[in-house]
Amino acid sequence: MKNIQDILKSAPKAKQRSFKKGSIIQSAGDLKTVPIYVKKGLLKSYLIDNNGKEHIYMFAPENWIIGDLEAIQYQQPAQLFIECIEDSEVIAFEKDCLFNTQLDNEQLAENAQTLYRRIGRLQRRVLMLMGATAADRYQYFLETYPELPNRVPQKMIASYLGIMPQTLSTIRKKLASPK
Amino acid sequence: MKNIQDILKSAPKAKQRSFKKGSIIQSAGDLKTVPIYVKKGLLKSYLIDNNGKEHIYMFAPENWIIGDLEAIQYQQPAQLFIECIEDSEVIAFEKDCLFNTQLDNEQLAENAQTLYRRIGRLQRRVLMLMGATAADRYQYFLETYPELPNRVPQKMIASYLGIMPQTLSTIRKKLASPK
Repeated sequence: MKNIQDILKSAPKAKQRSFKKGSIIQSAGDLKTVPIYVKKGLLKSYLIDNNGKEHIYMFAPENWIIGDLEAIQYQQPAQLFIECIEDSEVIAFEKDCLFNTQLDNEQLAENAQTLYRRIGRLQRRVLMLMGATAADRYQYFLETYPELPNRVPQKMIASYLGIMPQTLSTIRKKLASPK
Repeated sequence: MKNIQDILKSAPKAKQRSFKKGSIIQSAGDLKTVPIYVKKGLLKSYLIDNNGKEHIYMFAPENWIIGDLEAIQYQQPAQLFIECIEDSEVIAFEKDCLFNTQLDNEQLAENAQTLYRRIGRLQRRVLMLMGATAADRYQYFLETYPELPNRVPQKMIASYLGIMPQTLSTIRKKLASPK
């Protein structure tokens, strides 16, 4: 069974690119967008609301896929910005290469598991935004991204969780203090 | 190309069942849960938070699939309740039957599109909960569920959108009044 990186290596339209920290590689309104596999580095996608406030939709460290899947699937202009938080190496690809009919059935079934996992994560994220306390939200972040607490500024984590940076600071202090 | 209902007809473990309005067919904490295809009727899934408040995760009218995909995918106890808003006929199935290796490649690729569409919808829902005005949220509901505004009580729509029922009432009155 191949992993996604191996599949992308043989995908005809996949393109590897390098970006410096701070590069914005997709902007809201872009008409042609594709999903991006992260080989190395760290990216974030975010929405800017009508009041100019940034809301982080997701982080993508190594081996994650990031993209505006609604825009890609429904052929709409992008809603999300995608920006490199660290110097990053990525592979831009066509989403259908994961379900290319040249792949064998077992591979297709395996790739479907990747989509199921993403749906499971998104379900949790919706429920978190609707009904979870700030402390539970931070717990969810730690479970989803165990490698990120010290790689991402606190302000960004708070934006991702939909809580105030001060609230997050209080939660982190409590977790760090001896019981 | 078969549609999902046709695939389920030939799936060995799929079970058709009928439920009366008000039946709760899955509860938080249930250990064995499966996705459910809606043949007829209308269901909702919801979370009850620590304060006893209900948050509606989704509605599922005819041809939708409803389930606790996080619980199914990660083999965890269910977080969501699933309840019939109307008398309903459903087919409970094993999620992997949509990616059974006996299906041909084109069918598998087609079924993957169903998952992509769900991810696109969930992305929109997360962004809506983070950064959209109440009026934009209601617009999103109308686009996602054009057949539901008169089938679902206003209180439930407000719960789904994460807004107060009074706010929704004001929005609906504005939309109904001549300009």
